[in-house]
Amino acid sequence: MSNSVLALGSHNRAAIRHLAESLSLPRLEAGWVWLAGAGPGDPGLVALHTLTAIADADVIFVDALVNRALLTLARPDTEIADSGKRGGKPSPSQDTISRRLVLAARRGKKVLRLKGGDPFVFGRGGEEALALVRAGIPFRVVPGVTAGIGGLAYAGIPVTHRDVNQAVTFVTGSGTNGRAPDVDWDAIAKGSPTILLYMARRHAAEIAAKLIAAGRDPNEPAAIVSSASLDQQTTVVTTLSQLGQNAAEADTPAILVIGENVRLAEGLDWLGAITKGRVLDPDPLKRNRLSDAG
Amino acid sequence: MSNSVLALGSHNRAAIRHLAESLSLPRLEAGWVWLAGAGPGDPGLVALHTLTAIADADVIFVDALVNRALLTLARPDTEIADSGKRGGKPSPSQDTISRRLVLAARRGKKVLRLKGGDPFVFGRGGEEALALVRAGIPFRVVPGVTAGIGGLAYAGIPVTHRDVNQAVTFVTGSGTNGRAPDVDWDAIAKGSPTILLYMARRHAAEIAAKLIAAGRDPNEPAAIVSSASLDQQTTVVTTLSQLGQNAAEADTPAILVIGENVRLAEGLDWLGAITKGRVLDPDPLKRNRLSDAG
Repeated sequence: MSNSVLALGSHNRAAIRHLAESLSLPRLEAGWVWLAGAGPGDPGLVALHTLTAIADADVIFVDALVNRALLTLARPDTEIADSGKRGGKPSPSQDTISRRLVLAARRGKKVLRLKGGDPFVFGRGGEEALALVRAGIPFRVVPGVTAGIGGLAYAGIPVTHRDVNQAVTFVTGSGTNGRAPDVDWDAIAKGSPTILLYMARRHAAEIAAKLIAAGRDPNEPAAIVSSASLDQQTTVVTTLSQLGQNAAEADTPAILVIGENVRLAEGLDWLGAITKGRVLDPDPLKRNRLSDAG
Repeated sequence: MSNSVLALGSHNRAAIRHLAESLSLPRLEAGWVWLAGAGPGDPGLVALHTLTAIADADVIFVDALVNRALLTLARPDTEIADSGKRGGKPSPSQDTISRRLVLAARRGKKVLRLKGGDPFVFGRGGEEALALVRAGIPFRVVPGVTAGIGGLAYAGIPVTHRDVNQAVTFVTGSGTNGRAPDVDWDAIAKGSPTILLYMARRHAAEIAAKLIAAGRDPNEPAAIVSSASLDQQTTVVTTLSQLGQNAAEADTPAILVIGENVRLAEGLDWLGAITKGRVLDPDPLKRNRLSDAG
């Protein structure tokens, strides 16, 4: 690493510490683990607590989905331990990750466990934290922006909108033993106008069929947002009946959404407006169509 | 303001701008509106994008629930416009807020609209953004940590946990015309092991009764987390049948949660462990009780 890059990194860490001090924020201490969410990908969505932990950590156990740009803020001597769990690829088991966190803390390290999204939204953060409790390791949890909310916002899709839904259900698409999750799809179909599916690419066709069988309109809008909030973000707008096929062809990681909220992207795709000059429709739900015609 | 406070603020803004530049983040420009979430309250949960906008803004339209400590990062000449909407108190209407955002942007100001939590989770962010689209004002949305996820994490309650729930439903407790929301409580009761209620203090008893009528166990764990992530945070652990009464007595703002996840706080209340020396139970769900006995 060149001297100028080193100086820049040092300046960044000083900036973070200055901010933390002026807001009286806690700091990652020796023998502690901070379990933090890095958000959906855009480094600008990372919380200040997480920035301080990156700057202070002796070792960072980092998931595959965390944006590597954040790690440029770490010290040059901070150990970066890849702990990504991605379907189909060899990766450390959950037990192994938990054991490594405990060992590093016991060695007196300042330990940051950095996960994509939010650690408590289908992220196994609770399991890792309970392993720390069993071992008597002190810890702090730092929430992150979850892809289901923040990632969809980057596609111009609000998970709630007053005219559209008073409830939204988040479901993992990945159940135990590689099967679709064992939930009451009939009740979810009836109870939630808006449904978000995490890690659901593989079982999307089966899930969509169950929702249609429960009475959801096959032509209902649905969308697949891949690499949400990153430069390579893509959105596929489709229908519930086509969701399975489109999901199978989509890039990962992807978040799936079913509901009228998807139509709001016609008006709220601010990122498309910025990067592609997309013209936004001020009445995406066409609620004013009659009065416009009159 | 003393010279030393002014110098500190200036140093903070320089630190934020340095970080933004080194990560190549966009900046709030003249004539633009950024619609940002400030998270549940802890200033350490604010995203870096939002920090840059606070440092750069000419005017900040700020909700009642936003932590005022964040505004110490703004320039001394930044206009702070209170735009809080709290039940029962006089506050500007949604139309008035939207009109003020448009006027400020048209006057060439750098405009930050800072809301509690996440702007798209029962936050009317979509409505404000569509008003900007109608007026032709360019804008960016910055997601925040929503109280239902991040606030509950500060009470040691993960909204998902592999052994407990594969789905979670977020519902606003505040429907149109001051009534309970018009959702299918029967389906929600059956479809979601875990239910989060926003702004539900007033209608909690009615909602709990409907969930019990739909078959939920009256003794099911429930919790009310008030002022989540702030120094004055309190958690009341109760049961579904007692939720209404406890909610009526609780401080606001409050987030309500129903489900087995509440029991995990016995093991995961990291904040209680830090601030009150609470001893955490490594087996809060008592899944290992039989093997422990043998």
